[in-house]
Amino acid sequence: MRIHLQTRPPGPDFFITLAQWRDALSGAGEPPHEVSLGTSQADWDAARGEAELLVTHADMLRRLLPLDGAALRLVFVTNAGVDGLAPFEWLPDGVTLLNNSGAHAPKAGEYIAMAVLMLAGRMPEMMTHQRAARWHPVFSAPVAGRRATIIGVGDLGAAGARTLRALGVGTVGVRTRAQPHPDFDEVVAVAELDEVLARSEFVVLACPLTEATRGLLDRRRLGLLPKGAGVVNIGRGRLLDQDALCDLLDSGQLGGAVLDVTVPEPLPADHRMWRTPNLVITPHVSCDDPTSYTALSLRILFANLRAWRRGEPLPNRVDTSRGY
Amino acid sequence: MRIHLQTRPPGPDFFITLAQWRDALSGAGEPPHEVSLGTSQADWDAARGEAELLVTHADMLRRLLPLDGAALRLVFVTNAGVDGLAPFEWLPDGVTLLNNSGAHAPKAGEYIAMAVLMLAGRMPEMMTHQRAARWHPVFSAPVAGRRATIIGVGDLGAAGARTLRALGVGTVGVRTRAQPHPDFDEVVAVAELDEVLARSEFVVLACPLTEATRGLLDRRRLGLLPKGAGVVNIGRGRLLDQDALCDLLDSGQLGGAVLDVTVPEPLPADHRMWRTPNLVITPHVSCDDPTSYTALSLRILFANLRAWRRGEPLPNRVDTSRGY
Repeated sequence: MRIHLQTRPPGPDFFITLAQWRDALSGAGEPPHEVSLGTSQADWDAARGEAELLVTHADMLRRLLPLDGAALRLVFVTNAGVDGLAPFEWLPDGVTLLNNSGAHAPKAGEYIAMAVLMLAGRMPEMMTHQRAARWHPVFSAPVAGRRATIIGVGDLGAAGARTLRALGVGTVGVRTRAQPHPDFDEVVAVAELDEVLARSEFVVLACPLTEATRGLLDRRRLGLLPKGAGVVNIGRGRLLDQDALCDLLDSGQLGGAVLDVTVPEPLPADHRMWRTPNLVITPHVSCDDPTSYTALSLRILFANLRAWRRGEPLPNRVDTSRGY
Repeated sequence: MRIHLQTRPPGPDFFITLAQWRDALSGAGEPPHEVSLGTSQADWDAARGEAELLVTHADMLRRLLPLDGAALRLVFVTNAGVDGLAPFEWLPDGVTLLNNSGAHAPKAGEYIAMAVLMLAGRMPEMMTHQRAARWHPVFSAPVAGRRATIIGVGDLGAAGARTLRALGVGTVGVRTRAQPHPDFDEVVAVAELDEVLARSEFVVLACPLTEATRGLLDRRRLGLLPKGAGVVNIGRGRLLDQDALCDLLDSGQLGGAVLDVTVPEPLPADHRMWRTPNLVITPHVSCDDPTSYTALSLRILFANLRAWRRGEPLPNRVDTSRGY
């Protein structure tokens, strides 16, 4: 297959290099591929007439649009969430978009468990006291035996459910339809979200950002959470109403929040969220492991290429009508 | 048995009240006891001639000393660590001191797991950036498959080892002698500590403070840890050299620390530790669960009373020669 990698210099975004690609190929059982590497528009222009597979990052892909007239059959983006590429009118007919869902699970599961432990242990509150150099003991019960609600029963949410289960924490998954999932104790349809929120001490947002999920935790729904509840967001900032969240933390109605995603990113220094009490901010790092990212990404890509050669359904095919 | 509870008004120290005691007694299968409650020296003076068991907190016990001339056979303190009562010359011959080891495990296990997840996820570093309102992504690998060293293979350390094992984290326990423990993958004697530290990415102090452990992690030993290592302390502040720890965090040699115990407590507002980079301080709350503390404490006491009546060894008897 003729493959083009459109990349940028190595950095914290873990983009795949040609050397890493060749290393990964050596043991993957792949047939010979002809691989080119580009960083500029001119590089892509030179490759587009022949490349059947484009491997790139959503941020870079946007700069290469439109793709019309290219020889492409497949586009693999090294992102799990492809909300930054929606709407998908740019995807030419007959070209399949693949995402990198699966590369993020090990880190995401641990981050979700850490965040729920932190919320149960009132760590955001203690971090707020630390900022003021205040010794102010706040006590809490263990989280084992309690329950967390995870919105999104995909790769990330299921990893969180497995890790929480190992800690003795039960999980309620929220998904489009109430189809059971082996990693969750209970799964409910998103239509029941309001009712579930009213009994959720901990809510974790781990779903993609789509037209259906934008603003899902709006001010009204955040207000349904019981007093002292905690919120985690590892999906996308626009899944929740940040100002409403800050107001509920300011008033003490919510007990804490751990957010890995914000609007905007990077969060400017004067944003209220940096200083909202009982709010912990991490800079969009919850799901990325530099030590395994390339290997996991290429393993996922190669699994899709095998399916492609066999004419089987592609496990990472993005359903552009749903947005993930 | 004639029992005296010496207490203070209910507060965040979870001291047992007479009502809670009576509730607990109702289902415990205990023979009838005559229980008195006191808060003042006069109350104790009135009870000391008859009370065979004194139930109290170490802070209050110190105020009741000396105990000579009392009818006491047993003293149960609601503390796990009894370093605040050492040396033990005050304990009259023939009186047995019992501690509350066992009441703290569920919370301690979760705190240790949370702290190790936070260190692996570079959370202390991100909290430092948050204090400065800086969006500064720092990435990290999952902790599953890695190892933590836990100094202290007692109730707290073993709970940490079990919780970490559930997360796929291996543990090396450090104890007086290298006797295996089922919750640890490996146990080494404290004589091997230097060698173990040199290969420890994460070190958790979960041992009692005794003459043998005071200053155990001194400047030299902290310097043996590999670059970027993380330190957790849920034991006692005097187990480590705080200034050396801060220096190593300031220089970036250590990656982070999560301390639940400090010298002094409360930590004054102008103490450098509040502001040392990549240092998370919690105010001595890692092991206490207000929802279960009284019930667990009384269950432990009753187990000791049953053994006492049968003439069996008392599980919570403090070995005053060792200090725990």
